[in-house]
Amino acid sequence: MDVGFIGLGLMGRPMALNLMRAGHRLHVWSRRRESMQPLLEEGAGEGASAADIAAKAEVVISMVADAPDVEAVALGPNGVAAGARPGLVFVDMSTIAPAAAQSIAARLAERGVTMLDAPVSGGEVGAIDATLTIMVGGEEAAFEKARPLFEAMGRTVSRIGTSGAGQVAKACNQILTGVGVAAVAEALNFARKSGVDAGRVREALLGGFAYSRILENHGQRMLDRNFRPGFKAWMHQKDMRIVLEEAHRLGLALPSAAATAQMFNAMVGSGLGDEDSVAMLKLLERMSGGGE
Amino acid sequence: MDVGFIGLGLMGRPMALNLMRAGHRLHVWSRRRESMQPLLEEGAGEGASAADIAAKAEVVISMVADAPDVEAVALGPNGVAAGARPGLVFVDMSTIAPAAAQSIAARLAERGVTMLDAPVSGGEVGAIDATLTIMVGGEEAAFEKARPLFEAMGRTVSRIGTSGAGQVAKACNQILTGVGVAAVAEALNFARKSGVDAGRVREALLGGFAYSRILENHGQRMLDRNFRPGFKAWMHQKDMRIVLEEAHRLGLALPSAAATAQMFNAMVGSGLGDEDSVAMLKLLERMSGGGE
Repeated sequence: MDVGFIGLGLMGRPMALNLMRAGHRLHVWSRRRESMQPLLEEGAGEGASAADIAAKAEVVISMVADAPDVEAVALGPNGVAAGARPGLVFVDMSTIAPAAAQSIAARLAERGVTMLDAPVSGGEVGAIDATLTIMVGGEEAAFEKARPLFEAMGRTVSRIGTSGAGQVAKACNQILTGVGVAAVAEALNFARKSGVDAGRVREALLGGFAYSRILENHGQRMLDRNFRPGFKAWMHQKDMRIVLEEAHRLGLALPSAAATAQMFNAMVGSGLGDEDSVAMLKLLERMSGGGE
Repeated sequence: MDVGFIGLGLMGRPMALNLMRAGHRLHVWSRRRESMQPLLEEGAGEGASAADIAAKAEVVISMVADAPDVEAVALGPNGVAAGARPGLVFVDMSTIAPAAAQSIAARLAERGVTMLDAPVSGGEVGAIDATLTIMVGGEEAAFEKARPLFEAMGRTVSRIGTSGAGQVAKACNQILTGVGVAAVAEALNFARKSGVDAGRVREALLGGFAYSRILENHGQRMLDRNFRPGFKAWMHQKDMRIVLEEAHRLGLALPSAAATAQMFNAMVGSGLGDEDSVAMLKLLERMSGGGE
């Protein structure tokens, strides 16, 4: 399939490479030419603009930072809508607010472009290994058209519902993983400050209802004091902002998510934003007079 | 082995039955004679007091509500210490504060009794099926003596460290499960209020880093609107009080655990205390103008 790909950063580049390995013809575009280079070397075609690659592709994928970037790529001058052939499917895999995704989808629909929101979970490792969890919102027919592409990039691919539903599922994912990291950091710090071997506590709790992939994976990284990202704290901070803005819009209380969002704010404010979210442990240690 | 058992409630009764099935001779005592009845019918011996069964046993187990109950059983008039033969091991399997466990253990040691703190996780089902997680603090030799009893009641048996360490591990368990229930309730309520099928969201997230046994088990019960205990909200409220009192004593911040404790307070205050902790979802629904 002819596929356009816009946004070749930490996540987008390995995802685009996995599409090429699956036999698809890639057309790439980026404001920064150097970020296209690795894909061009693998044989991808270079587009002059988002509109240009939209004219060459059946599906255009974007993987960018935030809603204004998606809006510019989709609807801006020389954006996807400006070049799209009839029937084009635009798949945004960035993490943005559900309401923003719905708004962009509605405006694209007026111009004959069908949009899917398809945010991912699994981080850089999942992008490289094609083991991402991909949560999709939008029309069934467009989902079926894009499905082979999703399956080349991820392991768990689910259509959650109509437009915006993928972003809602991603928001739920960020609540569970963010609060999960906070709870594990609090528990391990509590154990250590109580004079108990936090590693033995983690080991004992893995066998019961306290088991989570966060306790297993992120908990071990906390014990190893391995704070390399992974998933940077400032990115989780951004995602928690989306969650809490949606909660505000919906009139919805999220007490544990709100407490966790404050901790991500404090991580960014105290210089831990570029470390992995597991550096939440460092913040708690500093707050209780210990740590590095 | 001759084993004394004090506290034959929802948890204690099936635990004591599993000890009898494993071939141990049980001696039971309770202030309320009717709670002894099922054990006496199975052939357990009836004690006249805690001191009386301590005189007949190598190991005495208690499974009661809170620290003052443990203190009365262990050190009160006609308590365990008053009747103990030399070398008796007293195993408290209740959930109490680590500092309280250490204090009782120290006073028992002065009277020749060795104490283990050995709280459990896994609820009534785990007590019946002998699949409890048992977290033990205290001396190695006493742990080895009691190990066959633990293995007759639980699946995962770990000595975490010295006196109080079992209670510290249990506190960590209650942080992770309590905050876990709150996060899952918040995420599923968020999905539903966003107009998205919460069951599909749960299903999609089980495949990624958001996976937890709480999402799998408690999440399903929330979707099924099955709020039968299980583990009652007022009991989790009590455990979160212990956690936060310890945090206060240690000068330790636990932001997500603190937010969750407030939710358990609100559950008890609004009449949900006798329902399972998964009824946290009902509380969130009431707070956002929906639900039953």
